[in-house]
Amino acid sequence: MPTDFLDLLHASLPPGAVSTTEADRRAHACDNSRLNALPDAVVFPTEHAQVEALVRACRAHRVPLTARGGGTSSTGASVPMAGGVVANFMRMDRILRIDPDNRLAVVEPGVTNEALQQALAPHGFFWAPDPGSAPWCTVGGNLACNASGPHAVKYGSTRDNVLGLRAVAGNGEGFRCGTQTTKSAIGYDLTRLLVGSEGTLALITEATLKLTPKPLAVRTLRATYRDTAAAVRAVARIMAQPATPCALEFMDALALKLAREHQPEAGVPAAEALLMIELDGAPDALDGAVAAVESAARVEGLVQLEVARDEAQTRALWAARKALSFAQRAATQHKINEDVVVPVSRLPELVDGVRQLAARHAVPIVSFGHAGNGNLHVNLLPRDVDEIERAHAALPELFALVIALDGTISGEHGIGVVKREFMPLALPATTLDLMRGIKAAFDPDGILNPGKLLP
Amino acid sequence: MPTDFLDLLHASLPPGAVSTTEADRRAHACDNSRLNALPDAVVFPTEHAQVEALVRACRAHRVPLTARGGGTSSTGASVPMAGGVVANFMRMDRILRIDPDNRLAVVEPGVTNEALQQALAPHGFFWAPDPGSAPWCTVGGNLACNASGPHAVKYGSTRDNVLGLRAVAGNGEGFRCGTQTTKSAIGYDLTRLLVGSEGTLALITEATLKLTPKPLAVRTLRATYRDTAAAVRAVARIMAQPATPCALEFMDALALKLAREHQPEAGVPAAEALLMIELDGAPDALDGAVAAVESAARVEGLVQLEVARDEAQTRALWAARKALSFAQRAATQHKINEDVVVPVSRLPELVDGVRQLAARHAVPIVSFGHAGNGNLHVNLLPRDVDEIERAHAALPELFALVIALDGTISGEHGIGVVKREFMPLALPATTLDLMRGIKAAFDPDGILNPGKLLP
Ligand SMILES: Cc1cc2nc3c(=O)[nH]c(=O)nc-3n(C[C@H](O)[C@H](O)[C@H](O)COP(=O)(O)OP(=O)(O)OC[C@H]3O[C@@H](n4cnc5c(N)ncnc54)[C@H](O)[C@@H]3O)c2cc1C
Ligand SMILES: Cc1cc2nc3c(=O)[nH]c(=O)nc-3n(C[C@H](O)[C@H](O)[C@H](O)COP(=O)(O)OP(=O)(O)OC[C@H]3O[C@@H](n4cnc5c(N)ncnc54)[C@H](O)[C@@H]3O)c2cc1C
Repeated sequence: MPTDFLDLLHASLPPGAVSTTEADRRAHACDNSRLNALPDAVVFPTEHAQVEALVRACRAHRVPLTARGGGTSSTGASVPMAGGVVANFMRMDRILRIDPDNRLAVVEPGVTNEALQQALAPHGFFWAPDPGSAPWCTVGGNLACNASGPHAVKYGSTRDNVLGLRAVAGNGEGFRCGTQTTKSAIGYDLTRLLVGSEGTLALITEATLKLTPKPLAVRTLRATYRDTAAAVRAVARIMAQPATPCALEFMDALALKLAREHQPEAGVPAAEALLMIELDGAPDALDGAVAAVESAARVEGLVQLEVARDEAQTRALWAARKALSFAQRAATQHKINEDVVVPVSRLPELVDGVRQLAARHAVPIVSFGHAGNGNLHVNLLPRDVDEIERAHAALPELFALVIALDGTISGEHGIGVVKREFMPLALPATTLDLMRGIKAAFDPDGILNPGKLLP
Repeated sequence: MPTDFLDLLHASLPPGAVSTTEADRRAHACDNSRLNALPDAVVFPTEHAQVEALVRACRAHRVPLTARGGGTSSTGASVPMAGGVVANFMRMDRILRIDPDNRLAVVEPGVTNEALQQALAPHGFFWAPDPGSAPWCTVGGNLACNASGPHAVKYGSTRDNVLGLRAVAGNGEGFRCGTQTTKSAIGYDLTRLLVGSEGTLALITEATLKLTPKPLAVRTLRATYRDTAAAVRAVARIMAQPATPCALEFMDALALKLAREHQPEAGVPAAEALLMIELDGAPDALDGAVAAVESAARVEGLVQLEVARDEAQTRALWAARKALSFAQRAATQHKINEDVVVPVSRLPELVDGVRQLAARHAVPIVSFGHAGNGNLHVNLLPRDVDEIERAHAALPELFALVIALDGTISGEHGIGVVKREFMPLALPATTLDLMRGIKAAFDPDGILNPGKLLP
């Protein structure tokens, strides 16, 4: 790190906002993947203008620059693979405006998803993206990864819930894109282009988010099936009628077994496949919606269908799903977390194919997740060195299977480092070339988050 | 038009697909704007491969190439300002797949919006974009303009209802982007970048569209108000509660007066402001939703609120809105059609400001449209040469007003030629520069629809 560059950083950022201490560098070397790379310096900007100065300094000195929110990415997206500077946005965490009349909020990128939801609740609104990491991940990270969660089936991903952005491109220029309105038709959509770009095009310094009014009531159903094919037939039937659930989650036989063994008191049913279904809306509308979904869920092969009558029963129904997270952690420390997507109707083939993969490579694999979007977490659970090796050998086959089923290799976690080499499987060379052209237009010297996303 | 270029066209396209006749050229010289420019040739591709060959031929010979669907754009977007070739996509009009299980349809770009809706109806689905031009405009045109209509307030614009595209970039390379799934997080979002790009980046040859299940029932309300401020307070209150209407349309006093005078028998109320409100959903859910919206609409200043009890009453309530289109046409042949957007809460200031503009420039202006999105059609209705001149003088002031209100200059019609010079008002120079960078990445020789969108 040349001293004139460090001097430039100190001059551009407030006192205490530039650190080269071992402790700070170590704290910014990893995310929720197993990757690790030390940055040379860490900065904590508090204003847009500082970010402009920072990017210009890095560009002038050709220093790699990686944005970081909560550091919860599971793909290595926030690991500074090439060293250089990490910009930690957690001090830019103000909620600048909550505007219920216009169904929008203006926030800085460092606010956590949970802090935002808490601030919105008294106004009767929420922001749709609901990753499991909500207490720790930031809105900036959600935007950069196009994060989502169970409610995306009704309310969409991050990309569907943003109106406008302020950012600094890799060329050092600050810009605004999008609008404060729910409609616009004025030129290229830079807003949605930045969403999912994993900090490789621009650093986001402010976001105008689309809010959704909180539903007044929620109802929960749980259905078990004789086999996966039956459960997935039910998913397709549920999605083909108008009462769209706000969550439609699947667990396969191994997921249920793990949860049952890990937490025998949680009442996890012994079944081949399970669906958790949540509906929300106006209280008087829910009876009809539940009836419609119940009838769609009653396919040949249904074993049991339960409807929670109160808070306690709802909690009891979700216990199986909750138990699974802990069960996986208990099963191994070497979990490989995938989140592939296929068209809903291809889910049976995906689940079957994954079962064959698990047998062929002799490694446990659980499948569960957001079935309403066709987005399954296919988690490989190797327990020793041999199984780890076999698990990694299985990955390319998993991705090839998903592509063969008209699906794709990530639904919400993104590409980062760990899925980068598989991008040519998922996308034609001509498409990747256009992406490289866009990268060059935003970041001509390639300083932003090098080594990520594009192969 | 050099003969070797024409030979290349004839070689690349099927017999009868290349025309240089005067009649064909004239038929492709204009759209729904007042602009006019003759192309040198017109082609009618029927396959993706032909479009690749076409773009390569145009690139090799540096010939301008303008895509055309129904030619209903009101901004000059489909007028070949620089001559060259017009590619008319109306012969690529196949619906390749309707897939209710996965809530998607795969179509060629030349299918009309209406033909698609008719094909979807028996499956219980619709495609959300609902422009008034549905019988004539194409899906390709809808995508290229990010078109929408009254239902966008609940179901979003075209951009929110597309999953993936096949296209040929200006560099001559065919590519696919997006997915067949409702979620994905794999790299830059080229799909939504092409939506709204007005044929300046790539020619779309296939689209995978997101479908929405048809609601089972619809209810219609009509409310009149003492003044615009009251009506708009009602709009904001309606939008801040969870029962989102599927249409929330506004008409100002002059719009009502024109409609009333043009069609005295239509029962158009004499009021300062009117709201048309439509709710859809499950039949048993609608009573509650109507009650919630009714109570939100009952602000200080409400004059009358009617709820249609049957089909005939519904038609009667919409008659005022229908009458307006004809009334405007009768009032003048020189209508200047704007579709500005402001945040919903700024609508009173917009309507007031427009009234002042009309007075200051002595030209009639009606305001009406998609109030739930803050998207008003502000139509200037000059009747003679002097008024036409004054109307054009008022336009920059209208756009400046909209920008001052945190709004933008187009909600659904796009930029084309007619709003191009106002882009620097709406967007910072740094943002426009990034758009130019993207244009260069897709279309390095600037052959696609030159003279549009970017100033
Ligand atoms: C327990 C757990 C549960 C999870 N559950 C889910 C889930 O349900 N759904 C889901 O989608 N994901 C989930 N994730 C993954 C992760 O939480 C999300 O990807 C999240 O969006 C990352 O946010 P972050 O603030 O931690 O970002 P980081 O990890 O810090 O960064 C992620 C990426 O965003 C970029 N970035 C961060 N801030 C900015 C900025 N201001 N400007 C530009 N780029 C920026 C980084 O450079 C990096 O590329 C989970 C992770 C964990 C650990
Ligand atoms: C009576 C009337 C009512 C209208 N109502 C509405 C309304 O309610 N809402 C609304 O949003 N608009 C409305 N419009 C405007 C217009 O209909 C829309 O913009 C429509 O989307 C244009 O579709 P088109 O097929 O006619 O496209 P065209 O006018 O032929 O082309 C429009 C643009 O799309 C590009 N394009 C066309 N096909 C392709 C392709 N395959 N690949 C790449 N680019 C392509 C063209 O190059 C051009 O830039 C209305 C117009 C009229 C005349």
